[in-house]
Amino acid sequence: MNENGDPDFDDIEAAARRIEPYVQRTPLWTSVELSRALGSPVEFKCENLQSAGAFKSRGACNAVFGLDDASAAHGVATHSSGNHAAALSRAARLRGIPAYIVMPRGAPRIKRAAVEGYGGRIEECEPTLAAREAAAAALVATTGATLVHPYDDPRVIAGQGTLVIELAAQTAPPEVVLVPVGGGGLLSGTAIACRRLWPGTRIVGAEPAGADDAFRSFTSGALQPQLAPQTIADGLRGALSARTLRLARAWVDEIVTVDEASIVAAMRLVFDRLKVVIEPSSAVPVAALLLGKVRAGRVVVVLSGGNVDLDALPWSAAARL
Amino acid sequence: MNENGDPDFDDIEAAARRIEPYVQRTPLWTSVELSRALGSPVEFKCENLQSAGAFKSRGACNAVFGLDDASAAHGVATHSSGNHAAALSRAARLRGIPAYIVMPRGAPRIKRAAVEGYGGRIEECEPTLAAREAAAAALVATTGATLVHPYDDPRVIAGQGTLVIELAAQTAPPEVVLVPVGGGGLLSGTAIACRRLWPGTRIVGAEPAGADDAFRSFTSGALQPQLAPQTIADGLRGALSARTLRLARAWVDEIVTVDEASIVAAMRLVFDRLKVVIEPSSAVPVAALLLGKVRAGRVVVVLSGGNVDLDALPWSAAARL
Repeated sequence: MNENGDPDFDDIEAAARRIEPYVQRTPLWTSVELSRALGSPVEFKCENLQSAGAFKSRGACNAVFGLDDASAAHGVATHSSGNHAAALSRAARLRGIPAYIVMPRGAPRIKRAAVEGYGGRIEECEPTLAAREAAAAALVATTGATLVHPYDDPRVIAGQGTLVIELAAQTAPPEVVLVPVGGGGLLSGTAIACRRLWPGTRIVGAEPAGADDAFRSFTSGALQPQLAPQTIADGLRGALSARTLRLARAWVDEIVTVDEASIVAAMRLVFDRLKVVIEPSSAVPVAALLLGKVRAGRVVVVLSGGNVDLDALPWSAAARL
Repeated sequence: MNENGDPDFDDIEAAARRIEPYVQRTPLWTSVELSRALGSPVEFKCENLQSAGAFKSRGACNAVFGLDDASAAHGVATHSSGNHAAALSRAARLRGIPAYIVMPRGAPRIKRAAVEGYGGRIEECEPTLAAREAAAAALVATTGATLVHPYDDPRVIAGQGTLVIELAAQTAPPEVVLVPVGGGGLLSGTAIACRRLWPGTRIVGAEPAGADDAFRSFTSGALQPQLAPQTIADGLRGALSARTLRLARAWVDEIVTVDEASIVAAMRLVFDRLKVVIEPSSAVPVAALLLGKVRAGRVVVVLSGGNVDLDALPWSAAARL
């Protein structure tokens, strides 16, 4: 860890050893036809097949299993719109400690059910960031639980970076690694690990144009607010923190944005050609390729999660009504 | 090959060497939660991720690349409702020869598009088995093409069996291998290879109750007709041939049947928990587990294909109308 408290490659290696019993080594998969449709040879790191259905299990397990026993006994807490909450609940259950989850009223049914399925204790709050942070702070004060932020946490960032250690054993260095950007935890962790293991590889983040704070912050160099995000990619509505902006500015090459129709088209293309189930957030980097916003000889795309409501797929008749 | 012209394990080993450059080594995947829901630890051989979206690429490539150059030059032909046609078209294109595909009028749009996408030449016929066979025979007479039957062909059966050679390198012998049954090509090939590589493993076929000729033929020992099959599992509407019945009676332990509602429930469960896209035929063995018709300490299920119309998933609002 450096003087800012930011994780470094040693933290990521330690995280990989720590979480190995608790997470999946996900497949790297490809499709000749999908690569043809996208205009580049693309390999997909299938974190949609990760435990609890998203890469979030990596950071959550690293945070939970890195606690000393005395702290762990009081449990962990977070405020999250979904996948981090499920992953933290699962990690806590594996360690046998409570997970307190602050969720906004109106969170998707599928994500509530996932938290409950892993034994997480849900506390509802108003759907504003301020209300979520206040409710989480109150929970921590009452229970003594350790707050595990979905991305603004060096343990979480180090955990997310472990997927690159797997990647480096699965394939040769690509020209570009392309990941979705929400709060920037996945992007930061990926970038730190790539810089060590694949120093010649470009690191690109893809973000919905309707929630483009990371693009604006990265470009201007100053943290920009996320104003009323409008995107189907529910995992990417968060905003960079000072830490993830600093890490992105240090290690990331570019952030590109994509429109909503392209996200839906990319999502359907992945279902159709790669035959895996992804949530809209995972389709965002694929959309960047589809739009020609990223061109490269070889690309690795991180498919970040697969937790989607199958009764409301965005191209279905019901969704079109 | 034995005195009946049936393939043996040597043919399957030869097929594995022959097709290796042209097919995927598909992942064997699992999910703790899905295993819990199904009541047994289950590993899934993901042939839905196979080239052209189904295990059929194995048999098709073995048939096409086993031809001598003189025969190959005239091309290959088949009558098929879908996945075999796409796989044969793809294999023929890889070898640079024509594929003539007889398809019934009204075949699913997605399956026609797949054949056309691989350059197969479609000839339409009436949707009866007699009309299909007559049209294929006429094509063969005109073109000199080699007929490659979807399942009643030792080269095709040997090709399908190659997936067990991969399996044996991916996991320990399970108590049961469970595969869907239509015409019996996958079941036969799987059974021949299992008997050699995993002699202690039970081989079970799963079939829709609405298309249960294999169950009736296997049970009675005499070939029973497939009368007006009624099932969403469009890949399993074919009937056993004398050859596949003989092989099933020789090597298979049991055939079980499942109802339509369970097929849909199993399909949704696989999308939801395993995060992969499957077609209804692949859900048939999963339904057998869901119904408690197969119980075992450890099961390997072959997910046979992933070619499904994403605009008409059987649990969607449109499909319910």
